[in-house]
Order: sequence, then structure tokens, then C-alpha cells
Amino acid sequence: MKPAKTPAPPYYACIFTSIRTAGDQGYADTAQRMIDLASAQPGFLGVESARGSDGLGITVSYWESEEAIRAWKAQTEHRVAQAAGRDIWYEQFDVRIARVERAYGK
Amino acid sequence: MKPAKTPAPPYYACIFTSIRTAGDQGYADTAQRMIDLASAQPGFLGVESARGSDGLGITVSYWESEEAIRAWKAQTEHRVAQAAGRDIWYEQFDVRIARVERAYGK
Repeated sequence: MKPAKTPAPPYYACIFTSIRTAGDQGYADTAQRMIDLASAQPGFLGVESARGSDGLGITVSYWESEEAIRAWKAQTEHRVAQAAGRDIWYEQFDVRIARVERAYGK
Repeated sequence: MKPAKTPAPPYYACIFTSIRTAGDQGYADTAQRMIDLASAQPGFLGVESARGSDGLGITVSYWESEEAIRAWKAQTEHRVAQAAGRDIWYEQFDVRIARVERAYGK
């Protein structure tokens, strides 16, 4: 996965941090499907994801507005995945919705 | 690394995404030192970090205020590390400063 190319702020970030349960249980296929679906949603700007060897995963998706994030959260197939995530795939997770105010880089 | 335990929003997040250059070149020791130093800074709330097998790394640190983030950026030893990061350790990086507005989890 490559770094996301985002426009000048302001825009929004959804920071999703997770610890997985043991075994795949359909996770990998659904995770890829969700990235594909999110990428086709209105207001999607980009996504970055990494999971370390210690099991902590961080996925940050970038959006034009809070409304775009809410619409993605309410998307039908995504709602099914969210339920499976809570019940099956994630031991623990945190979602943080944040407004990106400034950015720089190399 | 464990998920960060943060207070109720609002607070601030510094989202640092990077691609490393080849070889360690002192990186691992400095990275750990920076986490230790940041953790002792005023206004520090927590940090989460993951680097995937494809090389993309994401570190999110959480802070009470933008002022706390600016003070950490200006910290002397951190400034030295930032210069080495730009010149030696990172092929590419992005820093995004964001205001966390809501949060939930499991």
C-alpha cells in the first residue's frame, strides 16, 4: 500500500486502530473488499494501512467531509462487515474521527 | 505496542506515515528513544505505531493541544532526529495534524 495523496487541508481522517482475534475467518477478503468499496464512495480521498508483527493494526482513511464518513459508515455492505468485525475479527478496536488542519512531508 | 487509551474528545492527533530507506542506520534506537521522550512531554496522551511487511509505517501520537504538538516538534533532541529522518531514514513521509472530534470502540 502506498502513502495516500491528499489535497490541502482541511479534510477529515478516520483513524481505525485494532487488535485482531486469532485466525483469518474471512477477514482478509473482506478487508480488501472494504478498501475497494470505500475507494468508490463519494468524498473518499485515500487510505493507508499497516499491521505490525506485534498484531497492532492502524488504518487511516481520508475524506472530504464528516458527511462522507457518515455515509460510508452507513453503507449496507460495510455495515455487515462492521458487525462481523465487532463480533468475530477484532479483539479490540478504536475509531477516531478527526479534522486534518495542517500537513507537510517529504 | 498496545492501543492508546485516550480521554474523551476533543484532543489532537499527529498522523505520521512513512516509507523507510534501506538498512537500519541507527533508526530503531532513535525511534524507541523518540517514543520514550514524547511520552514524557507535557500534553502527551498516547502513541500507536505499526509498520507492515510492505514497508508502509503509520505512527499516530495523541496530544492535549496543538501547543503540545508544537512544543514536541521544537524539542531539541527531537529536532536532531527529524533532520536525520528527512536526510537518512525516510524515503518519503507525511505528517498530518488533526483535531479528534469523536471516538468510539470495542
